[in-house]
Amino acid sequence: MRKIVFALFAFLLLFSRWSNAQSDTSFIKDDFKPSILNQPGQDYPQVNSQRYVRFRIYAPQAQSVKATLGGSQGTMLTPSKDGFWVGTTADPVDEGFHYYHLIVDGGVFNDPGTLNFYGSTRWESGIEVPAHDQEFYALKDVPHGHVVQILFPSKSTNSIRRAFVYLPPDYDENHSERYPVLYLQHGWGEDETAWVNQGRVNLIMDNLIAEGKVRPFIIVMTYGMTNDVKIGQLKDFDIKPFETVLVNELIPYIDEHFHTIADQKHRAMAGLSMGSMETKMITLSNVDKFSYIGLFSGASISLDDVSKIPDFKDKIKLVFVSYGSKEIDWLVRLGKEFTGGDPRKNVEDLKNAGINAVLYVSPNTAHEFLTWRRSLKEFAMLLFKQ
Amino acid sequence: MRKIVFALFAFLLLFSRWSNAQSDTSFIKDDFKPSILNQPGQDYPQVNSQRYVRFRIYAPQAQSVKATLGGSQGTMLTPSKDGFWVGTTADPVDEGFHYYHLIVDGGVFNDPGTLNFYGSTRWESGIEVPAHDQEFYALKDVPHGHVVQILFPSKSTNSIRRAFVYLPPDYDENHSERYPVLYLQHGWGEDETAWVNQGRVNLIMDNLIAEGKVRPFIIVMTYGMTNDVKIGQLKDFDIKPFETVLVNELIPYIDEHFHTIADQKHRAMAGLSMGSMETKMITLSNVDKFSYIGLFSGASISLDDVSKIPDFKDKIKLVFVSYGSKEIDWLVRLGKEFTGGDPRKNVEDLKNAGINAVLYVSPNTAHEFLTWRRSLKEFAMLLFKQ
Repeated sequence: MRKIVFALFAFLLLFSRWSNAQSDTSFIKDDFKPSILNQPGQDYPQVNSQRYVRFRIYAPQAQSVKATLGGSQGTMLTPSKDGFWVGTTADPVDEGFHYYHLIVDGGVFNDPGTLNFYGSTRWESGIEVPAHDQEFYALKDVPHGHVVQILFPSKSTNSIRRAFVYLPPDYDENHSERYPVLYLQHGWGEDETAWVNQGRVNLIMDNLIAEGKVRPFIIVMTYGMTNDVKIGQLKDFDIKPFETVLVNELIPYIDEHFHTIADQKHRAMAGLSMGSMETKMITLSNVDKFSYIGLFSGASISLDDVSKIPDFKDKIKLVFVSYGSKEIDWLVRLGKEFTGGDPRKNVEDLKNAGINAVLYVSPNTAHEFLTWRRSLKEFAMLLFKQ
Repeated sequence: MRKIVFALFAFLLLFSRWSNAQSDTSFIKDDFKPSILNQPGQDYPQVNSQRYVRFRIYAPQAQSVKATLGGSQGTMLTPSKDGFWVGTTADPVDEGFHYYHLIVDGGVFNDPGTLNFYGSTRWESGIEVPAHDQEFYALKDVPHGHVVQILFPSKSTNSIRRAFVYLPPDYDENHSERYPVLYLQHGWGEDETAWVNQGRVNLIMDNLIAEGKVRPFIIVMTYGMTNDVKIGQLKDFDIKPFETVLVNELIPYIDEHFHTIADQKHRAMAGLSMGSMETKMITLSNVDKFSYIGLFSGASISLDDVSKIPDFKDKIKLVFVSYGSKEIDWLVRLGKEFTGGDPRKNVEDLKNAGINAVLYVSPNTAHEFLTWRRSLKEFAMLLFKQ
């Protein structure tokens, strides 16, 4: 069954990119601006105030150029006499971050105009569509925390593994202070770079801390696809190798090297999509190690799950479940066997059983990073306050 | 004149990629292996034991595909029936790291098989050719330092700027310990990511520290093209904006946030190519702030330079000058007005004047990262020992 779950998360991820509404013929305003994720000096891709995206690619002898963003078919570009291929999405694109790539004469290439982001087990082109609430993840003139790349030894996988550690702005100065820790997982096909690069988690935290809306804490992000499965091999995914890395190797390393409060009450875990499934599996097996659980766009915890763990209600201070409003139909259709059931019902059931469960729905977003940036923000504000 | 200098460094960088020897017809062994810089699961590009590089690109409807690595013309790929374009460099490629890109039907794209590295003011494809001495920059089972991304405020440029900070392995544990600092600059068209991604500076340091060959110190790397010049606008480059960021803003930030020894005796600066020119300019104007000077593949300091600074000999504990054996002819040809003169003569002159000057020549490398990895290693072993 678990095999099917991971295949479905891969499908969800791919389907989410095709899920924008079909074309209409509304007037497209000529106020296009370069995406903030463009490479230095690159004018394209661009986004307008209506969230249409325009591409411009130089390939004078190409036979066909397509961008995979925009509608269910992507956006076919048309050649111009100066050697550029140009095109605009048929519809507005959701607010927030999107992956895409080009198909040039049948081959998969990235848009040379943009920065790349690791998703779908490859470095993909990325674009940012300004969101009405983008201030919460903007780079502002506030004190900034650090993002630390660590290389930690893993005996169980016989490797040296990488993780990124967010340290809040006052970490360096307050040597007597110790901090709670959130372990935060990416989705299928992504890696430990995703929450900083695509999720802007450090900027979200810097802004929340500057506004006094969260208790400062450390965030640890490492690679969750421990057996390095390819897209066709997801059925081989097994949680145990990653659980061992995280619980037996990474947590002790973090507690040794950083100023943590190294107990269950001050440790949380969360993840998006496949990462939510990993979070559910690992936290339910380790209620003595984690107090707070965040499940974004995927798993939820049912009363049935809880009934198997006698001290769940005592140990777990929060079950936070979220999704984008545009993806709830899928999640419900997937049903109990895949995600643990309808997240709305599960959260209600947990609440009625006296468990602190919270449901958050990101408006007008699908299985994509704006859902997860918002989820992280909402979740962070609830953490470590008991 | 300074305008010409920076234009020349850009030229050097581009020329260095065309400088491999022309084709011969020696037998090419069939022991190709994927480059260690390939994206997860990608089999191509590959390198064989003779340092030939083989490319394989899927683009079934393309008219022409070329890789810019290999010989003065790059490597033209030829189509096969399965939709792939394949080709092998006409000659062996130098040991170490190389940038390249593809030209697909006249357009510039990256090889979807490899990771990208920022160079030439764009994210380029990268490949690693195993070097006979690669152990010194290999990822090994030794204690690893951390690489910290910081965001620091810069009033002079009205921006929040990024830097990376290498902290030695024992930094977290030894709170009473304080460390010297090296400020380390990238070359033209690169950025603050270059020394870690292309240079593997953290691994070089981890290995040297594990072997007891260096005194542990902090390394700070930030963006040195402060006015964001494009390739056609190098003539607008001016050192003052960057000098202000580095000396007046970054150094105070580092000394405030990290456990540094915040004095001239424990501060060094080095850089590669354009970064060596920046290092020369900034250190000669600030001998009260830096004790150690590292100039890799570019500038050197002449007796004439020194004669203008009365306390140079007292203040400066080391002038380290290096280059790759394959690029010395250029450097000499460029002459005094561009690089400060023949580095060999300059180092001899400084030595004869009683200044601690060291010349290092990287064998069989050109204007490329293996020269700079080796230079950094040699330089590091001489630092902060007085």
